[in-house]
Amino acid sequence: MSILFKNVDWIVTQNPEREIFRNKSVYVEDNKIVEIGNPKVEADHVIDGKGKILSPGLINCHTHSSMTLFRGYADDMELKTWLEEKIWPLEIKLKPEDCYFGSLLACFEMIRFGVTCFNDMYIHVDEIAKAVKESGLRCFLGEVIFDWNLEEKLPYSDKFIKKYLGDELITPLVNMHSPYSCSEETLLKLKKKSDNYNILMHIHVSETEKEVKDFQKDKGKTPVKYLDEIGILNDKLIAVHCNWLTNKDVDIFSQRNCSIVHCPTSNMKLANGRMPLLKWIFKKDIRVGLGTDGAASNNNLDMFEEMKNCSIANKFFQRDPTFIPAQKALDLATIEAAKVFGIGDKIGSIEEDKNADLILVDSRKPHLQPIHGKSTVISNLVYSCQGLDVDSMAVNGKILMKNREVLGIDDEEVFGNTEKIMKNFISV
Amino acid sequence: MSILFKNVDWIVTQNPEREIFRNKSVYVEDNKIVEIGNPKVEADHVIDGKGKILSPGLINCHTHSSMTLFRGYADDMELKTWLEEKIWPLEIKLKPEDCYFGSLLACFEMIRFGVTCFNDMYIHVDEIAKAVKESGLRCFLGEVIFDWNLEEKLPYSDKFIKKYLGDELITPLVNMHSPYSCSEETLLKLKKKSDNYNILMHIHVSETEKEVKDFQKDKGKTPVKYLDEIGILNDKLIAVHCNWLTNKDVDIFSQRNCSIVHCPTSNMKLANGRMPLLKWIFKKDIRVGLGTDGAASNNNLDMFEEMKNCSIANKFFQRDPTFIPAQKALDLATIEAAKVFGIGDKIGSIEEDKNADLILVDSRKPHLQPIHGKSTVISNLVYSCQGLDVDSMAVNGKILMKNREVLGIDDEEVFGNTEKIMKNFISV
Repeated sequence: MSILFKNVDWIVTQNPEREIFRNKSVYVEDNKIVEIGNPKVEADHVIDGKGKILSPGLINCHTHSSMTLFRGYADDMELKTWLEEKIWPLEIKLKPEDCYFGSLLACFEMIRFGVTCFNDMYIHVDEIAKAVKESGLRCFLGEVIFDWNLEEKLPYSDKFIKKYLGDELITPLVNMHSPYSCSEETLLKLKKKSDNYNILMHIHVSETEKEVKDFQKDKGKTPVKYLDEIGILNDKLIAVHCNWLTNKDVDIFSQRNCSIVHCPTSNMKLANGRMPLLKWIFKKDIRVGLGTDGAASNNNLDMFEEMKNCSIANKFFQRDPTFIPAQKALDLATIEAAKVFGIGDKIGSIEEDKNADLILVDSRKPHLQPIHGKSTVISNLVYSCQGLDVDSMAVNGKILMKNREVLGIDDEEVFGNTEKIMKNFISV
Repeated sequence: MSILFKNVDWIVTQNPEREIFRNKSVYVEDNKIVEIGNPKVEADHVIDGKGKILSPGLINCHTHSSMTLFRGYADDMELKTWLEEKIWPLEIKLKPEDCYFGSLLACFEMIRFGVTCFNDMYIHVDEIAKAVKESGLRCFLGEVIFDWNLEEKLPYSDKFIKKYLGDELITPLVNMHSPYSCSEETLLKLKKKSDNYNILMHIHVSETEKEVKDFQKDKGKTPVKYLDEIGILNDKLIAVHCNWLTNKDVDIFSQRNCSIVHCPTSNMKLANGRMPLLKWIFKKDIRVGLGTDGAASNNNLDMFEEMKNCSIANKFFQRDPTFIPAQKALDLATIEAAKVFGIGDKIGSIEEDKNADLILVDSRKPHLQPIHGKSTVISNLVYSCQGLDVDSMAVNGKILMKNREVLGIDDEEVFGNTEKIMKNFISV
């Protein structure tokens, strides 16, 4: 199977020099990018790049895919009330097939929005993996574990990991919910899984001020210091949110070579009250990616919105309009995000021999005009684009959407089923 | 001329009871909404509402339309450098026809994004009015005046006001740039125009901390107190940004019955450092609308993004996730915005005998599913939608876009001309 993205107006490579090519083509064979330039080849699929921008696919570093079911179900509430009165009572009722349809809807949405890879934390992951397989997306996935479900879920998680180890698109990881919902014993058991299988760990850390204050009160230290002391932190750990890190916490993450995921839209909507200390985090060379969080707290999975919000919210928080320029925001959603997952050599940029995870953005729209030059292209991708501007996309050399039509997902079936699931919940 | 929006899934009326109707139709004759329900009529145009949401058109309460030309030209800079080194040197070179094409591009973008009415502050407004007329949008418009152009522009502005007084779609207003760029004498001259013609005034106020500090230092009072003392403030005044108001300033605005426009995205991107005191402003019953600001500082004119950012940025700033719920954000972009311009009896809601400024949003998309009920519809409009979800729209009973095709604007001509204008500037 081969694809030729032909005569693309602008190719945003995100290579180490951040080169942008004008009026060139990209040739893909099987799952790899074979040539960037003016290849003289025949291809199974030729996609016209006139008036378009080719970019590496966007990487959503943190979501709860099946929570698309709860989109718009409960907004504008205190986090505690939202979780305890709205979200958890529904989640406990979720059946495996509900998670399948919720996740399929999320994959559908992410394909439409140019997300080629995502990192998912949820339950019933066998069913989620089924949805992801059908969609064709690249995904990091693991059953989320708390103290209360450890006994039941650990063997399930183990089986899931074994099943998907070595899979081309689905990479299993260890999903530990948080230091406040997992005891030391639970965390250590899960860390052992990560060691045994040499796979990533993914955990919520220091999302709210209350969480950090409670930790200080109970244990006399921050969640990060605690995780370090019990020996959880290493280069496999991906810590999400991190709104309330101290400078010392950042130093610890840096020493232990951990990664951080920032979810600005969700953090603003839930009013968590602080942006992460990104200036200090960047200075310490910590790997950082961006995530949308789940659709119950965002309420879409649009990484274009996330890039813009990352830039403008952190400019605002730091009172510095030069902070996180457009290029940096794009890096956090592409090549830097790939490094978070240890696959910066495989995806995140358009370079020969890399896997072909690519998106084509239609720039012949009024909100993306005029284009003055290369810097406008980056600015437009970050500050003007919306997910719906993505015209076509491929993951691992396979076309998942062409001319805005998503291949292989039946929209009426997905919409009908997700609506039915929610109606049942609400009428119960 | 008549239009029937037939069997619409959800009609978000924004009427005083904020009613939402299910599976009903809206019949429009000439420029008015004649019937909401199940009208048995023939219409010149029938637009199918299945799978769609009908809402009042969105109102962009503050922009500089021709600045679409500068989209992506200069980002991530300090406000002063940005203005002095990038924006003003180009603005001084703008010819009338440049402003025409820039504004036409803005109108094109706003139609695509469901904005039916906007408030514009720029130069060469005769040419802008020409673009607006061609687009079919509703617009408040006036030549922006500073001290340095007063002598030249006052007669021009006067002629413009006289020309458009009583126009059905273009309403002239007095655009005074700001209290720091207009002397007391200039402000009073402009206020007199407002009195003479009984038209609105529109001014930037307290956008940056520096502006307010400089005022305190020079005059020993805030810009608002100063404007009040020289007699500028009344129910005709629309004050934009207002990031650095004091509680006392808000009290003054309330006593004088002024209006406020909030531009959250621009304020975040330029890192102006504070959101307005909206809690206090709402308590004082001040009229408030939302604006995108110009495309050089946002960088798009998407009022859906503005509604979401208004809600989440103010939640974050206030550390209160219950602040500005979805319904309130929608109000600020529709019926409350109409009140800012004193035309709450004409537009801003879907009610019989009101002018037909309507947008139809296609909800059969993955990021707008599932829909659980009325509250989801509002949540989706504010937190999940993007401008590109708008499928069709009408202003004053005339269809400007149908099935995402904008009628009467030649995209290639607009794109070609705006690109050429910018290329000339950059190569000069």
